[in-house]
Amino acid sequence: MSEQVVLAVDLGGSSMKGALVTEHGETLVTETRLTPEIDIVEALIELLHSLEATASVRGLQVIAAGVVTPGIVDEQAGVVRYASNLGWKDLPLLHLLRARLDMPVAIGHDVRAAGLAEQLLGAARGADDFVLIPIGTGVAAALVSAGGTLTGATGAAGEFGHIPVVPGGELCTCGQRGCLEVYVSGAGLARRYQARGGEALSSKQIVARLGADPHADVVWAEAVQVLAQGLAILTLLLDPRVIVIGGGFAHAGEALFGPLRDALTAGLAWREAPRVVQALLGSEAGRIGASILAFRAAGRGDVVDGWTVAEAVAV
Amino acid sequence: MSEQVVLAVDLGGSSMKGALVTEHGETLVTETRLTPEIDIVEALIELLHSLEATASVRGLQVIAAGVVTPGIVDEQAGVVRYASNLGWKDLPLLHLLRARLDMPVAIGHDVRAAGLAEQLLGAARGADDFVLIPIGTGVAAALVSAGGTLTGATGAAGEFGHIPVVPGGELCTCGQRGCLEVYVSGAGLARRYQARGGEALSSKQIVARLGADPHADVVWAEAVQVLAQGLAILTLLLDPRVIVIGGGFAHAGEALFGPLRDALTAGLAWREAPRVVQALLGSEAGRIGASILAFRAAGRGDVVDGWTVAEAVAV
Repeated sequence: MSEQVVLAVDLGGSSMKGALVTEHGETLVTETRLTPEIDIVEALIELLHSLEATASVRGLQVIAAGVVTPGIVDEQAGVVRYASNLGWKDLPLLHLLRARLDMPVAIGHDVRAAGLAEQLLGAARGADDFVLIPIGTGVAAALVSAGGTLTGATGAAGEFGHIPVVPGGELCTCGQRGCLEVYVSGAGLARRYQARGGEALSSKQIVARLGADPHADVVWAEAVQVLAQGLAILTLLLDPRVIVIGGGFAHAGEALFGPLRDALTAGLAWREAPRVVQALLGSEAGRIGASILAFRAAGRGDVVDGWTVAEAVAV
Repeated sequence: MSEQVVLAVDLGGSSMKGALVTEHGETLVTETRLTPEIDIVEALIELLHSLEATASVRGLQVIAAGVVTPGIVDEQAGVVRYASNLGWKDLPLLHLLRARLDMPVAIGHDVRAAGLAEQLLGAARGADDFVLIPIGTGVAAALVSAGGTLTGATGAAGEFGHIPVVPGGELCTCGQRGCLEVYVSGAGLARRYQARGGEALSSKQIVARLGADPHADVVWAEAVQVLAQGLAILTLLLDPRVIVIGGGFAHAGEALFGPLRDALTAGLAWREAPRVVQALLGSEAGRIGASILAFRAAGRGDVVDGWTVAEAVAV
């Protein structure tokens, strides 16, 4: 009998990352394309068909497909309510994909799917209550409580980047003031560094200057402090066992995690801080989550139990 | 056949509010006692036995008991992990009650139980995603997502009163700075009014002076603003359908809800605000929640479907 695989796609504003993933959690093939400005659904279906054709050539049996997207995703209804960087509003994505793919299909939210992947085989393995916070250009979060990912009444839960943490603070691109990601994101860090008279640097370059550049030290210290405040809020509201930080920020390593843990502990007077750790699956987490959703859609959600990180992220 | 009732007790730091509640949701008898400084468990059991005796005299069949307490409550383990105003730490309350009561017993967290009551027959009726925020001397919250009440990894979820909302803000009695309840609670409002040179007034008296007393206007406006910030945080993280405000603060009526709704809407740039409404069950919500937990412990959780607010709060 031929090996069974699923099609998994992490659809983002700039690229569509696709893969074939086996029931053993092995990523056999990846195929990444730029996300077009228009006809995104058509381009997505082309990518899925291309992956399907690759599977056929290799003699693999495709049993399901999973696609995760940013925005406000209603998994139950199969509708992307709103995705600003895809230009989608109330798009019945599940229906559109089912009409063109002869297999079970699942859609999901990219960060919540990444949280699922970190929970089942990554840094939050075994935790029923945890938070995954990918910090890149912007900030998102997957909030998991008692084993379930919080979606909210309209699929909009987890907007950690836009919680107002500094009353009357700096203006965010979203139109609100004092949002966490004004201070903590890659974009926010670069903008605040430049506003102090620094050059146009990436957050990675700013981190590289810590200890040698007072402007870098200040904006980084403020980012850590605001992030610690945000983690204190999450801790007091949700009481997670572990907080997993992903995205580019997490690559700062101990320059981030050392002072962040100290600031979180200092901010919590009467309760212990949860563990704060780096994500394990990196930028693959969303795609791996999509493959898990696909296996679930095929009634094979149990296969994930035997997966390992090394196989999941390897090609 | 005699009518079936449960014993329900809302155990607080100052009083123990007990009742007999029928399977039709009718509160037949209430019995309230002061909470003693020591031997609280013994006093609680005495109250339960007294309610049981009253039931016996009336020819009622007691089928279960439910007790709700403040603090960090692990419902699954039946343990109160920590309750500062009861002096309890890792108290196996469920075990202690079972040893002295010959019936099914449930324990719960007072605010989460109140949230359950508001959800099943109060202001959040029919909502699967909502937040209940009782604002009295302090501030707590029951967070309900997809029909389930969030408890967190250690039973400590929902500490909305202590989320840090003003970086480096005023000192809270908890030892942290800038906690929401420093600005929003009854105690916080009275303290801040006095700090401005005002008399020692209750929050109710301060609200009565709105429009005629500039100090009252200022501390109230700041309370509303900070509460709106907190509700924006809850909205962005949890995406509730409705936010229910209870406790003494909610009695301010439109002096609270009008400006609060405006400030929440103004603070949310790109998403709609959820409905913000007053709690229906008032100070009875915890005890009613305890009775629901008791019926569940007796395998009769379905009886609540037919309950009405009027019967639940009446004696």
